[in-house]
Amino acid sequence: MEIRIADGRTVTADAGESIYAALKKNGIYLVASCGGKGICGKCRVKVIEGRSRIEASARLSKKDREESTVLACQAFPEEDILIEIPEDAKLVIGDKIAVSKAKGLLEFLHSVEQVFTPPVGCTVLDLAPPTIHDNISDLERIKRALDEKGIHGMRFSHDFVLSMSKALRDAAWKVTLAYSDDLEAFALHPSECLNEYGIAVDIGTTTIVLYLVNCYDGSLIDVGMTYNSQMRYGDDVITRIVHATEGGGIAELQQAVVDDVNDMLLPILEKNSISRDAVVAAVLSGNTTMSQLFWGLDPSSIREEPYIPTINIFPVWRAGTAKLRINSQAPVYTLPSVGSYVGGDIVAGVLASKMHRSPEIALFMDIGTNGEIAVGNNEWLITAACSMGPCFEGSGIRHGMRATEGAIESVKIDPLTFEPALGVIGDVKPVGICGSGMIDAISELFFTGLIDQKGKFARDLKTDRIKVEDEGPEFILHRGELRDIVLTEADVENVVRAKAALYAGVSVLLKEVGLSLDIVERIYIAGGFGNYLDIDKAIMIGMLPDLPEEKFSFIGNTSIAGSYLCLLSRKMRQEAAEIAGKMTYMELSVLRGFMDEYMSALFLPHTDMDLFPTVKKAYNKSV
Amino acid sequence: MEIRIADGRTVTADAGESIYAALKKNGIYLVASCGGKGICGKCRVKVIEGRSRIEASARLSKKDREESTVLACQAFPEEDILIEIPEDAKLVIGDKIAVSKAKGLLEFLHSVEQVFTPPVGCTVLDLAPPTIHDNISDLERIKRALDEKGIHGMRFSHDFVLSMSKALRDAAWKVTLAYSDDLEAFALHPSECLNEYGIAVDIGTTTIVLYLVNCYDGSLIDVGMTYNSQMRYGDDVITRIVHATEGGGIAELQQAVVDDVNDMLLPILEKNSISRDAVVAAVLSGNTTMSQLFWGLDPSSIREEPYIPTINIFPVWRAGTAKLRINSQAPVYTLPSVGSYVGGDIVAGVLASKMHRSPEIALFMDIGTNGEIAVGNNEWLITAACSMGPCFEGSGIRHGMRATEGAIESVKIDPLTFEPALGVIGDVKPVGICGSGMIDAISELFFTGLIDQKGKFARDLKTDRIKVEDEGPEFILHRGELRDIVLTEADVENVVRAKAALYAGVSVLLKEVGLSLDIVERIYIAGGFGNYLDIDKAIMIGMLPDLPEEKFSFIGNTSIAGSYLCLLSRKMRQEAAEIAGKMTYMELSVLRGFMDEYMSALFLPHTDMDLFPTVKKAYNKSV
Repeated sequence: MEIRIADGRTVTADAGESIYAALKKNGIYLVASCGGKGICGKCRVKVIEGRSRIEASARLSKKDREESTVLACQAFPEEDILIEIPEDAKLVIGDKIAVSKAKGLLEFLHSVEQVFTPPVGCTVLDLAPPTIHDNISDLERIKRALDEKGIHGMRFSHDFVLSMSKALRDAAWKVTLAYSDDLEAFALHPSECLNEYGIAVDIGTTTIVLYLVNCYDGSLIDVGMTYNSQMRYGDDVITRIVHATEGGGIAELQQAVVDDVNDMLLPILEKNSISRDAVVAAVLSGNTTMSQLFWGLDPSSIREEPYIPTINIFPVWRAGTAKLRINSQAPVYTLPSVGSYVGGDIVAGVLASKMHRSPEIALFMDIGTNGEIAVGNNEWLITAACSMGPCFEGSGIRHGMRATEGAIESVKIDPLTFEPALGVIGDVKPVGICGSGMIDAISELFFTGLIDQKGKFARDLKTDRIKVEDEGPEFILHRGELRDIVLTEADVENVVRAKAALYAGVSVLLKEVGLSLDIVERIYIAGGFGNYLDIDKAIMIGMLPDLPEEKFSFIGNTSIAGSYLCLLSRKMRQEAAEIAGKMTYMELSVLRGFMDEYMSALFLPHTDMDLFPTVKKAYNKSV
Repeated sequence: MEIRIADGRTVTADAGESIYAALKKNGIYLVASCGGKGICGKCRVKVIEGRSRIEASARLSKKDREESTVLACQAFPEEDILIEIPEDAKLVIGDKIAVSKAKGLLEFLHSVEQVFTPPVGCTVLDLAPPTIHDNISDLERIKRALDEKGIHGMRFSHDFVLSMSKALRDAAWKVTLAYSDDLEAFALHPSECLNEYGIAVDIGTTTIVLYLVNCYDGSLIDVGMTYNSQMRYGDDVITRIVHATEGGGIAELQQAVVDDVNDMLLPILEKNSISRDAVVAAVLSGNTTMSQLFWGLDPSSIREEPYIPTINIFPVWRAGTAKLRINSQAPVYTLPSVGSYVGGDIVAGVLASKMHRSPEIALFMDIGTNGEIAVGNNEWLITAACSMGPCFEGSGIRHGMRATEGAIESVKIDPLTFEPALGVIGDVKPVGICGSGMIDAISELFFTGLIDQKGKFARDLKTDRIKVEDEGPEFILHRGELRDIVLTEADVENVVRAKAALYAGVSVLLKEVGLSLDIVERIYIAGGFGNYLDIDKAIMIGMLPDLPEEKFSFIGNTSIAGSYLCLLSRKMRQEAAEIAGKMTYMELSVLRGFMDEYMSALFLPHTDMDLFPTVKKAYNKSV
């Protein structure tokens, strides 16, 4: 069947394939934070012509149905159809913010190393063609040339040798040999390797971010982002580990994430006219479970005491082994994990923060579906993790979305009229709310008395901004033509639970090492908040400790930033290994006092207001 | 369909499968030197009941057809059938001679090294189970234990890690780690590795021999032999290389030889109650083309000036890569080749002869489908090869067979009555003639005047032992009930061409290095002649140079012997590498004088009788 889109494009759907899947296959991504299982209700499209079988539509209103709006993941075309994709359902691939940040990283790299050293090396071999008197074999000819260049101990895989002889003859014996960092030959090219590419991939529990990088000049060519389709098997790492223990579960989870990366990468390569084979290196970073699942490794022992991962320091394996659709021989470097719940993403984060290079004691927090915390300096590092849920990544929130165009990223509420003023990424009509917007909104709701310390809505306040639906009260952030954008009481609860877990984690970890907050000189906040996080507001809701604002730095998605550094620099890979080796990993769940701290933090900002003197002062002034 | 055999066994044939293939699939091997393409006419079976479709029967006489004899490779059952397999069609697997020879090799090995060092090592790891305080990952736990044992730099494949965590827990953290010589981990066993097995395989152009060996005590458990099924694509390496250049040819040739090894190995393992996974190492030796084809490498450049192999020193790859049905992670060591027509089989041969360890100048000849020659001592080695054709391995000869039970291995002809006296392997009724029998027979035919110096039959001699058929004259060696065993004029021609090539090769090679025959102190003759080769007779037909008999040693199949040595000893693998590195390879076809020498040697014993003074004297006396 054909699916025509109102903008003029046409894609083909196989029998039994959903509109969502057919579009995705063709590089057209819809927002679907549930991974396409009919739950999040975000992949709405309007069917203008043609008949589809609808599986579930509980997320759609009567009005939606009257207007022929369907969930693309639940609609299966039965004939050629014509659809229209509303702006707010389109997943924006590509991120201009990332590109500008990468420039800063490049400058840092240049200060560390003169020449980029990705996990592939290459050397030009200008071989003497064989003669009857110089009749050594093709492989020995290559080895002789390498010996002359002082490169010894190269290993040659069967795959390499299979295509080697033809490649040598086709290139008239002048070739470039590409090899992995650990000295395994992987390809012969007829030309010099000035245009080779690598990918850095951040595999988050909720979102996946990919950088396509020119390994020669370090430039960031393109960026892709998508939701992790593993979400269809569970929102957090624990439910996914449970799924993995069920028959075939590991394979499903592995395939979901690898497909996500491949599905995101291929249109990007096409757009930039780069062949798959020219992508010769990959660097992955993710939490321990994500890294293991990417490689198809059973994560079950991570979940059970004594919480042991299969692997922390990953060997460099090949893209073909992972079924990653780049050059099959490309080395794939996986950032080392520290422990069962502190993974390569945090090692990447510490690396990108550079706190491991400074004598100052710093606190690093990565806010995602898990909250990971690291404390330390250039001498010692200690780390722990807590589960926050996917709310800051836009999942599990009625109108949540990632920090891309159309996301409400800041909110100001007039204390008298309760009318909100919104800041929207890209200055466009808002289509949802991202993590920083939620923090702002909750802080404002709290300070204007719209919600109480427990996050409950003040139902008696005279404002039409609060609407009480079957599912409970909600605050209307934006009145839309088709639908309003709201923040519900359940959304607020989600955020409060998440911030409580993070704050409790920080408190318990510092207590464990006998440090008080005031000797922390720098606080790095990482996470996919886009380019904006109002630190002040995050303190107001009790998510961050009450410290002077100048100590805080918001440093964005450091998992992808650290991957990018490791893709381009051997020195960075060495430092990542050192960070992972040096970090002491604490299991929060077995530390005494975590549950108490968590329960106390389930208030705005906290049950003990004295921990938040600034907030106390401001609150007393406002009410 | 079922095929019942008169001896009581029953096998199943798929639709369209020949009797030959169905039997082979079930471990019942028939003699078929053509590899089952209906040409050699040896896989005769008698169909007692049931209907088959017959594809070709040109090799069968009217009498055969009347007796319902069919070629098993050309007969396709169309219903359940009952067959009888004549003794001479049964391929004997297993070789008692080999077992006795292996004992001598074991003694030699014990004199070289105290403990066997196969290409797999193993070490027992008694790991402390993880606790919440000792919570490093499973892989780091293994690495830590290896570090404590002084084993550094182990590599871990993705396959290994996939099954590692479960293996550790199943074995309660006490495991044996098996790893390849080049330090790649490949398996975790719950027990100590006292019962691990290896295979040594000699891949000849015509025959394949396999030893199943206990890697712990070095004992030879079983032996298998079969014809190389690549023969269906050509008798010699050149025609196979030509086939390889045709679409899909390489894959066909690779699959043929790998299937042969697997088909031969599996019943042997079953018979000895050894699991596939317990076979943890393999050593291969073959000529350069055979080695390359085993690994699926295009051999085409071997055939074209300047005759360059893809590879001489093979990396140690894995059994899974070769689709060898032993432990998929088992390292496969391939004996190094020297040049395009001198392969690992000759390196193995020199190794087994030990000529590389002695200051005496020795001449080594391996007589198979190719004749390879090496000259030298512990300081230098020079080598060359010539094509002899498969006659000495029983192929291309009317009643030729390999040196197994039932083969005529010696012949004495009464100069007056022309009646032959036959020596038959196993003292049974003869079923064919092997290489040594042919040399004997031709020498006797020549000295009794039954053939002339050109190998032509004396048709005018009064004896009913010479019969003239449509295809030419033939000598009746044995009068059988069903059929006679004969040596035809065409058979004699084949042998004369083969011996001429070998003799010319020796002459030209010695001339090239400026050596005369008399400084050669030892001559080693290798080849699959079984336990018998009459050196004197081989000199009489001009195959071997006319030197005192005490300088000669017949040392059997040295390709398999050398493989066996390399399977058990790292020192032997090192010496093999040294031999391959030290040998100077001469391309006979480009040496001046080879064709002249060859033409002169196409006589019995030679056009120049003065080169064979002993023969001249004996001949003058006999006629």
